[in-house]
Amino acid sequence: MSSTTELQSAAGGPPLGLEALNSLSQQAQAFAQLSGLYEHSDWIIEKALGQRPFKSVAHFRQVCRQVVDQAPRDAQLALIRAHPELTGKAKIDPSLAQDSKNEQQAVGLDRCSPEEFESLTRLNAAYKEKFGWPFIIAVRGPRGLGLSRQAIIEALARRLNDPIDQERAECLHQIHRIAEMRLNERMGCAPTDGERVWDNCESLAESSEEASCLTVSYLSDAHRAAAQWLKKAFQQAGCSEVEIDAVGNVVGRWGKPPYLLTGSHYDTVRNGGRYDGRLGIFVPLEVLRRQSQSLSFGVELVAFAEEEGVRYAATFLGSSALTGDFKESWLEAKDANGISMAQAMKTAGLATDFSAIQALRRDPKDYLGFVEVHIEQGPVLASQGLPLGVVTSINGSLRYKVKLKGQASHAGTTPMGQRRDAAMVAAELMVYLERRALAQPALVGTVGQLQVPNGSTNVVPGACEFSLDLRAPSNEARDSLAHDVLQELQAIASRRAVDLEVTEVLRASAAPSDQALQALWEKAIEDIGLPVYRLPSGAGHDAMKMHDLLPQAMLFVRGENQGISHNPLESTTADDMQLAVEAFYAFCLRLAQTQQTSGLAGTASSPRSVALNP
Amino acid sequence: MSSTTELQSAAGGPPLGLEALNSLSQQAQAFAQLSGLYEHSDWIIEKALGQRPFKSVAHFRQVCRQVVDQAPRDAQLALIRAHPELTGKAKIDPSLAQDSKNEQQAVGLDRCSPEEFESLTRLNAAYKEKFGWPFIIAVRGPRGLGLSRQAIIEALARRLNDPIDQERAECLHQIHRIAEMRLNERMGCAPTDGERVWDNCESLAESSEEASCLTVSYLSDAHRAAAQWLKKAFQQAGCSEVEIDAVGNVVGRWGKPPYLLTGSHYDTVRNGGRYDGRLGIFVPLEVLRRQSQSLSFGVELVAFAEEEGVRYAATFLGSSALTGDFKESWLEAKDANGISMAQAMKTAGLATDFSAIQALRRDPKDYLGFVEVHIEQGPVLASQGLPLGVVTSINGSLRYKVKLKGQASHAGTTPMGQRRDAAMVAAELMVYLERRALAQPALVGTVGQLQVPNGSTNVVPGACEFSLDLRAPSNEARDSLAHDVLQELQAIASRRAVDLEVTEVLRASAAPSDQALQALWEKAIEDIGLPVYRLPSGAGHDAMKMHDLLPQAMLFVRGENQGISHNPLESTTADDMQLAVEAFYAFCLRLAQTQQTSGLAGTASSPRSVALNP
Repeated sequence: MSSTTELQSAAGGPPLGLEALNSLSQQAQAFAQLSGLYEHSDWIIEKALGQRPFKSVAHFRQVCRQVVDQAPRDAQLALIRAHPELTGKAKIDPSLAQDSKNEQQAVGLDRCSPEEFESLTRLNAAYKEKFGWPFIIAVRGPRGLGLSRQAIIEALARRLNDPIDQERAECLHQIHRIAEMRLNERMGCAPTDGERVWDNCESLAESSEEASCLTVSYLSDAHRAAAQWLKKAFQQAGCSEVEIDAVGNVVGRWGKPPYLLTGSHYDTVRNGGRYDGRLGIFVPLEVLRRQSQSLSFGVELVAFAEEEGVRYAATFLGSSALTGDFKESWLEAKDANGISMAQAMKTAGLATDFSAIQALRRDPKDYLGFVEVHIEQGPVLASQGLPLGVVTSINGSLRYKVKLKGQASHAGTTPMGQRRDAAMVAAELMVYLERRALAQPALVGTVGQLQVPNGSTNVVPGACEFSLDLRAPSNEARDSLAHDVLQELQAIASRRAVDLEVTEVLRASAAPSDQALQALWEKAIEDIGLPVYRLPSGAGHDAMKMHDLLPQAMLFVRGENQGISHNPLESTTADDMQLAVEAFYAFCLRLAQTQQTSGLAGTASSPRSVALNP
Repeated sequence: MSSTTELQSAAGGPPLGLEALNSLSQQAQAFAQLSGLYEHSDWIIEKALGQRPFKSVAHFRQVCRQVVDQAPRDAQLALIRAHPELTGKAKIDPSLAQDSKNEQQAVGLDRCSPEEFESLTRLNAAYKEKFGWPFIIAVRGPRGLGLSRQAIIEALARRLNDPIDQERAECLHQIHRIAEMRLNERMGCAPTDGERVWDNCESLAESSEEASCLTVSYLSDAHRAAAQWLKKAFQQAGCSEVEIDAVGNVVGRWGKPPYLLTGSHYDTVRNGGRYDGRLGIFVPLEVLRRQSQSLSFGVELVAFAEEEGVRYAATFLGSSALTGDFKESWLEAKDANGISMAQAMKTAGLATDFSAIQALRRDPKDYLGFVEVHIEQGPVLASQGLPLGVVTSINGSLRYKVKLKGQASHAGTTPMGQRRDAAMVAAELMVYLERRALAQPALVGTVGQLQVPNGSTNVVPGACEFSLDLRAPSNEARDSLAHDVLQELQAIASRRAVDLEVTEVLRASAAPSDQALQALWEKAIEDIGLPVYRLPSGAGHDAMKMHDLLPQAMLFVRGENQGISHNPLESTTADDMQLAVEAFYAFCLRLAQTQQTSGLAGTASSPRSVALNP
């Protein structure tokens, strides 16, 4: 397995190497070679080196981050202010550090058009005015190939709207990203596996229903093209068998049973991101491409055809087929153009009768379990400064529609104490909901839809409608949250003499990770020198469905841009992807070990062993 | 002036008379004659009689109400439960009190159709089940002529939705209304002036743009028919001159200057009530019809053509013409059909040039002031159990549109502490606003429009929009409320890192009542034996505009149905109208006295004397 530390960089100068970095006798040399990693702030390197030895380059990077995190606010601001402004001047300031000069020149900031220069100047001034420091961005971008000037200007315009605390954190994150890429050069390593994952995501994103953005809904032309592309990619990665199954899943097998089942979905939401789902296909694929021969068990990699529920009113179509939960009635579902799912499948040359779908159900005894790599789709890892996280549970959820009916009355003539204001019930409940969810770790509660139908400025709301979305890592915590929230809602409505109608619209069980598989992820992360961080998954994933059939555990990869997802800004770096590939390989090695020592095979670790209260 | 106590009733039996009621020597006779006023609950009469002497029959009624109000909850419930259910049976229960029997037969409850009987039975059962007492309604209705069976069934169905506290209060109110009508019979009096006011409102409501409801917008055919009807009514009431002026106001004059200016508007909102505005025309008209000769000053009665702003984007058109504030630009305003105001006026045979409108401006030195009688359009008098109230000020108001921009993010994956939830800012502000408004008497604050645009159940709101309507009896209190609310909004938004855009859309000054005129209303109310109750007006009225030119003070009349307005359910009783007529006459007598003693004339009491901070 090629990891960053084993690669030799073509970049100028003799690479430092992990051994030299860890060698006490070469301290002066290491320090000299790492000088300038952080702009005019070698104190970070100095402090970090004090924590030698490092298990990996990633470990050293993580320690540098920690040094900055633990520094006083003033020192953090000084680090930010040590960076040059991206001026877009024809001649880049000669006083710049050489690294910065190289980076700015590499992305052509010295070749701005007059319009680009005007935009940069104006936005820089506004940014400096708002935050009091220069705008900082790793101009070489997530893949290290350099951002376009337009992308840099758009990021500046966008981040200008950020709250100050968030923007300070983002600048520090960008500084670490700059240091990470500089470090790769100094250490003579490159995240080549991660780059290949990144490039695969890029190539697959060329299939889209819309030219201007990424939309791949179930069985569209773009979806079918994506399946063909994946099939070919699987073949090129040396799988022994590959097929597009009866529901459109692309299934590749390496080696023999028992299989480790892994994968994620390749469909997207409308105008979605390039990594949601797809990362969970390409990270294992990269391991299999390089290392499948060294594994003592088989791997079945599934690119699930459908997870998002964009085209039809049903979700998890791909994984449902594998668990035997694909509903025959779904075949009659119609899309917005009146095309039934059965018709769409026929057009795509897939299942022509339901029995072919039923036959896709997997037999648990052939499998070691299911693991899924996924971009976090949330801000937790980004805010923790960690590239990877181990999922403890996929949160269970409850959704409700709430309709309130009070008494519409004149806003001027109805005294505060004589109102039956329906919207006030919602407001009071929202404040309670937030407090209640905050009181217990990992709970979330959201009022995402909220409106006073036909409200008028001068009329006390006689009606109000809102949605309620409650999630928790266990069904017990979810139900307790729902109990308290609904009880409070009832009490508020009753006190305000407002009628209440609550309809449950969704109830999904939590899918806690299999303890054995989760422990393997944790060991794998330690193996590559990173700290173990556990978090629940707030979003549903294919693993949630697979949980019905097999023990499962997920690995999360940090998202850039505060973890934004279902959005074109969804992103992650080649370096983070590299770590995911390394962690996946380490997981496989650990799994092989466990197999040898404890005979873990088939459904030995059943999901039922950690099953929930019904 | 004919007041209820002076009238002789045609109803059976020798009337009791106020003198006999007050005579200690006739206590037994009075008690006997009043027995049964309250169903099987003579304890109320007994206690009330203990407070003799009474200044008027209205005073006695008010004392009875007070006795019930001060009785323990159990006694109140026993009073309610002493009433028979409206069964709709072909044969009315012979065990009923004779009064109840008569009343139920009078409205034909013994002649229900099978469908009506079925509805009554079903609704009665549901009502009894919900509240635990029989449905009570004064079946003879607000005019004393009897409600239709359909109206009774509709009221039952409607009130079935009321909160229990409100419905208990409503039952007690209906019981007092029943007693009031029974008392009229026993005392041999009838609210003949109030009945005439009621009948006038009914007749005027025959002109409507819509057959099924009351809509009279500026210069519609119905509006012009109403003006002609009013002109004729003014003539029949003996005015010396009457005209429809250049903007459509119907102006009648009785006597010579200086004039007391009074009146209100005759336009309505869409599907409006019959008393909003019109009560303020017909109450003075009734006084003038009977008593204009006995007044030592002239009266100018104006039926204002427009106040509601339904047809054009401008309000107070009628009163603006009198104050000289009618804007020439309004003439270019277009209605929904593209008809300009100038065009509509021409079609109606009104002003053909702006100078004719400018000429309508009144010279303050010709006037003693402006008074306006108006239905309250709110629940305060109803909840206080009082027929009349003196307005202290027409509340000033401020309206804002608020736009919040946070960060839309995944409801499942974004921890509570990392959200920028725009709707939570609104929720928190609403809770604050309510508390702040409650902390000071007579303030109101309302979020009437509220929405998360394109909200999704599973997305943390990235945007939220709401309206803010703040009102207070003085500009100072209004501005202090606005200051606190906007400061809190800013603080909440800032703490939650949500961007805030606040736009002021309306700023109206408070119009505090002229102290001298208000004092005259208070004395007038005492003169007719009622307690003085002061309240601000939350809604705008013509008096608010007239305030720019003349000292002004308003009288409010209780509305039935918890004071609902701008709604077909808007209502008030002939007995309350009778009291308004009596109070208006008493006001005129008091004003004449003041004139004689202090020489109050013209603009002696200027509105500027109580003017506000700008």
